[in-house]
Amino acid sequence: MDENKQRSEEMEDQENVEQEEVIDHPEQEVVEETNPASNEVEQLRQEKDETYQRLLRLQADYDNFRRRSQKERENDLKYKSQDLVEELLPIVDNFERALQTDVQDDSAKSFVEGMNMVYRQLKDALNKQGVEEIPAVGEEFDPNMHQAVMQVDDENYGSNVVVEELQKGYKLKDRVIRPSMVKVNQ
Amino acid sequence: MDENKQRSEEMEDQENVEQEEVIDHPEQEVVEETNPASNEVEQLRQEKDETYQRLLRLQADYDNFRRRSQKERENDLKYKSQDLVEELLPIVDNFERALQTDVQDDSAKSFVEGMNMVYRQLKDALNKQGVEEIPAVGEEFDPNMHQAVMQVDDENYGSNVVVEELQKGYKLKDRVIRPSMVKVNQ
Repeated sequence: MDENKQRSEEMEDQENVEQEEVIDHPEQEVVEETNPASNEVEQLRQEKDETYQRLLRLQADYDNFRRRSQKERENDLKYKSQDLVEELLPIVDNFERALQTDVQDDSAKSFVEGMNMVYRQLKDALNKQGVEEIPAVGEEFDPNMHQAVMQVDDENYGSNVVVEELQKGYKLKDRVIRPSMVKVNQ
Repeated sequence: MDENKQRSEEMEDQENVEQEEVIDHPEQEVVEETNPASNEVEQLRQEKDETYQRLLRLQADYDNFRRRSQKERENDLKYKSQDLVEELLPIVDNFERALQTDVQDDSAKSFVEGMNMVYRQLKDALNKQGVEEIPAVGEEFDPNMHQAVMQVDDENYGSNVVVEELQKGYKLKDRVIRPSMVKVNQ
């Protein structure tokens, strides 16, 4: 920004100089029309100035482009796992639902334990990418993070508070990638 | 590229013009030293040329920067899921190992089915991101894709052919992100 400002000041200075010259020697204007050397000076000055203007514009374009691509790249990197995370969320849902199954048999115990371990590893991998569950039950209803699918009247909770979570919501860093589906108290 | 070429041709043209002038009017050189108007012309011409050179250099820098950031961005996007995929591969290994467990009990059957479904969904999500298993058994040993941990002597396979896979290998698009661990025939 400072560079740009400096350049535009330089530009103004240059313009001022040219204006002053015209004001200080108004008689020259007539002379110049018949003097080929002065005409050449005028033309060169104009060409030089035009080239300088092109340089300033290009520098401003370049600066803008650099800032924009820096910004885009940071954004790309910050949310780079979003695609795959979105694919994994329904898998996590199904995993959780399946793990609710009541398995009584002892012979299946090690299998169930194995699956619980795989589930925890999957959640850890997601956490490591910045995926977090959105807090719901007991929280004040927030339309940016919660999707209300039902209103209830429950004395145990305050007004506008989430009473029940029907589907977990998730954030990737500061971005809500799936709001929680909830019941809200009136 | 063509733009650059055009610009450097323009530059050469300009230089040629200046040289020709000097050759066509050699007597002017002496005159110019004492003529302030000619001195001014010379100085302006030089300044204009310098500005033009700066413009050319800036344009070339800008073009390079644009090409480089385009390339970097494509690469970022192509392999963006690599981090998370690398975290998921050991989970897939554990999942497969756990699914090998022999569960006889009928009451656990729906649980096992549920887990098989979750496993298939996980694999599908990975495939969708461009993750593929590296073919191993029966393939010619390829040091770029296979890591030989043992050599065997097996008449049923040709020489330098993979005989057994100890751990699955995976590619993300054209990039090997984990080579297969294999036994190779002598």
